[in-house]
Amino acid sequence: MDGKIGLEEHFAIPETLSDSAGFLPDESWQELSKRLLDIHEGRLRQMDEHGMEMMLLSLNAPAVQAIHETSKACEIATRANDFLAEQVAKRPDRFQGLAALPLQDPDRATRELERCIKDLGFRGALVNGFSQVDRPDNVVYYDAPQFDSFWKTVQELDVPFYLHPRNPIPAWAQIYEGHPWLLGPTWAFGQETAVHALRLMGSGLFDRYPRLKIILGHMGEGLPYSMWRIDNRNGWTKAPKSYPAKRNFAEYFQENFYLTTSGNFRTQTLIDAILEIGADRILFSTDWPFENVDHAANWFDATSISEADRLKIGRTNAVDLFKL
Amino acid sequence: MDGKIGLEEHFAIPETLSDSAGFLPDESWQELSKRLLDIHEGRLRQMDEHGMEMMLLSLNAPAVQAIHETSKACEIATRANDFLAEQVAKRPDRFQGLAALPLQDPDRATRELERCIKDLGFRGALVNGFSQVDRPDNVVYYDAPQFDSFWKTVQELDVPFYLHPRNPIPAWAQIYEGHPWLLGPTWAFGQETAVHALRLMGSGLFDRYPRLKIILGHMGEGLPYSMWRIDNRNGWTKAPKSYPAKRNFAEYFQENFYLTTSGNFRTQTLIDAILEIGADRILFSTDWPFENVDHAANWFDATSISEADRLKIGRTNAVDLFKL
Amino acid sequence: MDGKIGLEEHFAIPETLSDSAGFLPDESWQELSKRLLDIHEGRLRQMDEHGMEMMLLSLNAPAVQAIHETSKACEIATRANDFLAEQVAKRPDRFQGLAALPLQDPDRATRELERCIKDLGFRGALVNGFSQVDRPDNVVYYDAPQFDSFWKTVQELDVPFYLHPRNPIPAWAQIYEGHPWLLGPTWAFGQETAVHALRLMGSGLFDRYPRLKIILGHMGEGLPYSMWRIDNRNGWTKAPKSYPAKRNFAEYFQENFYLTTSGNFRTQTLIDAILEIGADRILFSTDWPFENVDHAANWFDATSISEADRLKIGRTNAVDLFKL
Amino acid sequence: MDGKIGLEEHFAIPETLSDSAGFLPDESWQELSKRLLDIHEGRLRQMDEHGMEMMLLSLNAPAVQAIHETSKACEIATRANDFLAEQVAKRPDRFQGLAALPLQDPDRATRELERCIKDLGFRGALVNGFSQVDRPDNVVYYDAPQFDSFWKTVQELDVPFYLHPRNPIPAWAQIYEGHPWLLGPTWAFGQETAVHALRLMGSGLFDRYPRLKIILGHMGEGLPYSMWRIDNRNGWTKAPKSYPAKRNFAEYFQENFYLTTSGNFRTQTLIDAILEIGADRILFSTDWPFENVDHAANWFDATSISEADRLKIGRTNAVDLFKL
Ligand SMILES: [Zn+2]
Ligand SMILES: [Zn+2]
Ligand SMILES: [Zn+2]
Ligand SMILES: [Zn+2]
Repeated sequence: MDGKIGLEEHFAIPETLSDSAGFLPDESWQELSKRLLDIHEGRLRQMDEHGMEMMLLSLNAPAVQAIHETSKACEIATRANDFLAEQVAKRPDRFQGLAALPLQDPDRATRELERCIKDLGFRGALVNGFSQVDRPDNVVYYDAPQFDSFWKTVQELDVPFYLHPRNPIPAWAQIYEGHPWLLGPTWAFGQETAVHALRLMGSGLFDRYPRLKIILGHMGEGLPYSMWRIDNRNGWTKAPKSYPAKRNFAEYFQENFYLTTSGNFRTQTLIDAILEIGADRILFSTDWPFENVDHAANWFDATSISEADRLKIGRTNAVDLFKL
Repeated sequence: MDGKIGLEEHFAIPETLSDSAGFLPDESWQELSKRLLDIHEGRLRQMDEHGMEMMLLSLNAPAVQAIHETSKACEIATRANDFLAEQVAKRPDRFQGLAALPLQDPDRATRELERCIKDLGFRGALVNGFSQVDRPDNVVYYDAPQFDSFWKTVQELDVPFYLHPRNPIPAWAQIYEGHPWLLGPTWAFGQETAVHALRLMGSGLFDRYPRLKIILGHMGEGLPYSMWRIDNRNGWTKAPKSYPAKRNFAEYFQENFYLTTSGNFRTQTLIDAILEIGADRILFSTDWPFENVDHAANWFDATSISEADRLKIGRTNAVDLFKL
Repeated sequence: MDGKIGLEEHFAIPETLSDSAGFLPDESWQELSKRLLDIHEGRLRQMDEHGMEMMLLSLNAPAVQAIHETSKACEIATRANDFLAEQVAKRPDRFQGLAALPLQDPDRATRELERCIKDLGFRGALVNGFSQVDRPDNVVYYDAPQFDSFWKTVQELDVPFYLHPRNPIPAWAQIYEGHPWLLGPTWAFGQETAVHALRLMGSGLFDRYPRLKIILGHMGEGLPYSMWRIDNRNGWTKAPKSYPAKRNFAEYFQENFYLTTSGNFRTQTLIDAILEIGADRILFSTDWPFENVDHAANWFDATSISEADRLKIGRTNAVDLFKL
Repeated sequence: MDGKIGLEEHFAIPETLSDSAGFLPDESWQELSKRLLDIHEGRLRQMDEHGMEMMLLSLNAPAVQAIHETSKACEIATRANDFLAEQVAKRPDRFQGLAALPLQDPDRATRELERCIKDLGFRGALVNGFSQVDRPDNVVYYDAPQFDSFWKTVQELDVPFYLHPRNPIPAWAQIYEGHPWLLGPTWAFGQETAVHALRLMGSGLFDRYPRLKIILGHMGEGLPYSMWRIDNRNGWTKAPKSYPAKRNFAEYFQENFYLTTSGNFRTQTLIDAILEIGADRILFSTDWPFENVDHAANWFDATSISEADRLKIGRTNAVDLFKL
């Protein structure tokens, strides 16, 4: 279909480019780095050729989240957002922006988000999982209490927050030892991001800010398949909930989350997602440049869903969610 | 349907009983411990009431796998297997056995498996994830080279190996810190077991022993939903595989793995599993006594699949797989 | 779920009551006739007990459509509509009306529809398939040219038209000879109504009146399963279309049709319908009193779809479609 | 996948060629007639190019069934079968035969079937719906009592019977009047064949001959989608069955019927069929030359089912069913 909109579409600035090395074999690095630094050439050509009208652009990963010096993290976030704003200004009909945020400092992240939305006209934020704060091994997830005011602002601004994957730090990645191929998109990205999302749900965040809109890529990082078991294991015990949140995990998932197809071009998986969360909360994305636009688009244009859902997932859900 | 067979159905001996404490709220412990120690009373009544003809019984978790002193692990495994053999002998029409194995010592585990199959008439083995060897923090997965001969024997004996969940050790569970409710069946069990299975696939084990049959519970511990992405992320890079195994992960999954419904009574999830691995490799199970037989049976008897698949999943796949 | 709305829910007036005899075994007739004549007693109790907030009521079948004397058909339609308006007036919070129409005379049917919508406050029309005109064996489908002005008015009034089943006349039912059990809801209703719908599509009606909204019961009378083949058989021949309409059948189906669950409480079928037409065009209905409210509601409340779609199909799609 | 086997694959002899005219636009006739008369040239090339190892060949439609003079029907059937046997003998590795049968005379049809199976080595029969007997308007379905002995022989020979579509005779096609585009594969084929199948089920045929194996093309001629409603409409009435057969329609459907994908290359439809009848009873077919091999094969090779089911549906189910 024409007019598709993607929302997990990355670029790099020189300072963050090397963060994307290592995921792909060396022989692909030249191509990947070229893709990451380009906005208006090859990228736009790919979009034209495969019916993508718009990309909501975001910085590559882990970038800002992995810069444990807060001042440096802030500086890079600002620089990336300023660069992105300039690029969007050249073709606002084809590109819109999602903010990079230095969540090492919740207050500065809040102010940067406000600047990005109000001054730069961005449509939301995309954050690459946990932040390393002050030292490389200090891992901070956003269910922590110091983020309460940040989330309050996200809700007030009424913009979506894309929780994007990153790898665990090496000290927390023991289970993959000797099997480095399980890191990154193969598996570890999903585990990392799914648990982060579950931490947000279990913490009661969505009781406090019920209008938050969190986006997960990769068809939900595995959550739809397991969501029933999360709430229903040991169903015969009638004990009170053991976590702070008031409701079942699935209720937050169904009311506060959106999923994208980024990097998961699988019809069976899409059907399962539709039967768990409904087509109104699923949105097309490619994960460019880590995935090809043609792989995403050729699959999506032919995948075995209704034409009505194809239009919603491919385009109109994004128009509604981001007020495009 | 009548005649259902379950294959993830647990019991405890006094020495392992307390391993099952802590997963459920205290007020359920009295009931749970009673269920675990019972074989021929309440359990059989549950089976009669809900159309289960047979349970393949296995020791609770983590039990043997968590006993880091090898001699103690061997002793408990032997004791549990002997006890199980006695129980099966009383009602071989309703119960069959799966061996507990002290994989702290691959040779002794191999011999115990041979004893269980050849002398005790067991139908396979059920192992609770990684073993702690010699000291609590020495975590050993079964893709390690010292298990090669063990797997050779498993293939020669032509019996299924059920890879059952356990929790990560605390030092490896940092991601769940402050969120203990994500441990156990809610989430950590799945991550732990899925990664273990992926390690087996990536290691080349199934190239060496292509007739191994590994069973995963809980509808595949999340793997079916993500299997495509595991092999196909970054599809545009044509680099050679980075792991020892010769084929795609999905090929091993489709040819060497079986899934059960234990603790995951969700039709959407079952349909996705059918569309990924096919109904010939899915088998009914309850996860008694952590899950109720009626919850499993009432769901399964009515779930939205063909009657042909209901019969296969509920019964005949197990008859074929275990030569019942 | 609470708050369900049903839109294929029938009543009878004394003059049409006997039209519903013959479909069910004699021993059910006493109960059925009581159900058909009741509005505010047992019906409301059923609704209360099973979470139905509202029924859009319609006359039983074939009723007006089978009265070949036009004046009589008009009289009965008027009488039924007046009776229905009185009943709705007593509980407008629980009942709304769909008009019976004497399509034997397109002009009078048009005027009666206008009266029902503008004066009586009805929400649409429900018509029982073809009309017999002037003599019993003169079968008239609504793709005929004399209905053009009627359809124009339907579009202008912006109300849905429910195309409800009826049996073929005996002279056209040769294929069922010796097998009367294939008549009615078992099979013939579906064939009759599906072909009528296809005639409307193929005739070009929706090219002329593209905003028409046609509702089909019984999960689409078989059409979703076959819709691809209807347009794509003999796909290698590139001949121009042989029918008057400009577009593929499926395009009209996807843009001008809505389906209800009446009398087809089957999850597999619902999933197929979702994957063909999307959850925005599927609406809950029971087909009371020919089907039980509890059969419909118990199934629907538990069927394996997302909660978002359950709410849309159960309630909000109807609110939108009928401006409730 | 390679090695696919198709079982609804047609040829014509000069005497039956013109029966296939009229379904397709004139400009396709030259190509179609060439395809129908060819066995070893273009057909084999198509098979080679798209991974079809074998076609079970059958005469085009309606052919024998439409020849109301019994002696002529017998003569044409014999001639077609003899011709087919010769063709199969040239490449038994690529072609096998299904018998044409003159069911105008049940005894001669029985003897011809025996000859085809025992002498010619055919694998089953394919019959084009009802037969016209003695005069064009005498329509005979095979639930009639005079076919009892024929069915007895089919069961004894243990060969499948493919019930292939044909159009209704004009006197029975009133519902399509003015809409000739609804005849043939667009719609009328499905109605005709589905009702014939339901007549067989309702008649009690499968109570008398429970090992009969009936094959339906086109993903079951619409039956899977409606099978639940056929048995469960008006579920609240507990009246005894009104038809001769002892069991529910769905039970016969699930135990005596097989479906093929011929001419219905739709993933949604295939998934629904899998969830109704199971992958063991679905078989790949193309409907050559009315459908293209590449259309069938390209779809099937990529359709969203498990690889295990792809192999069964594409090949091994046919090997088992026809003892290839
Ligand atoms: Zn990404
Ligand atoms: Zn278990
Ligand atoms: Zn009705
Ligand atoms: Zn055919």
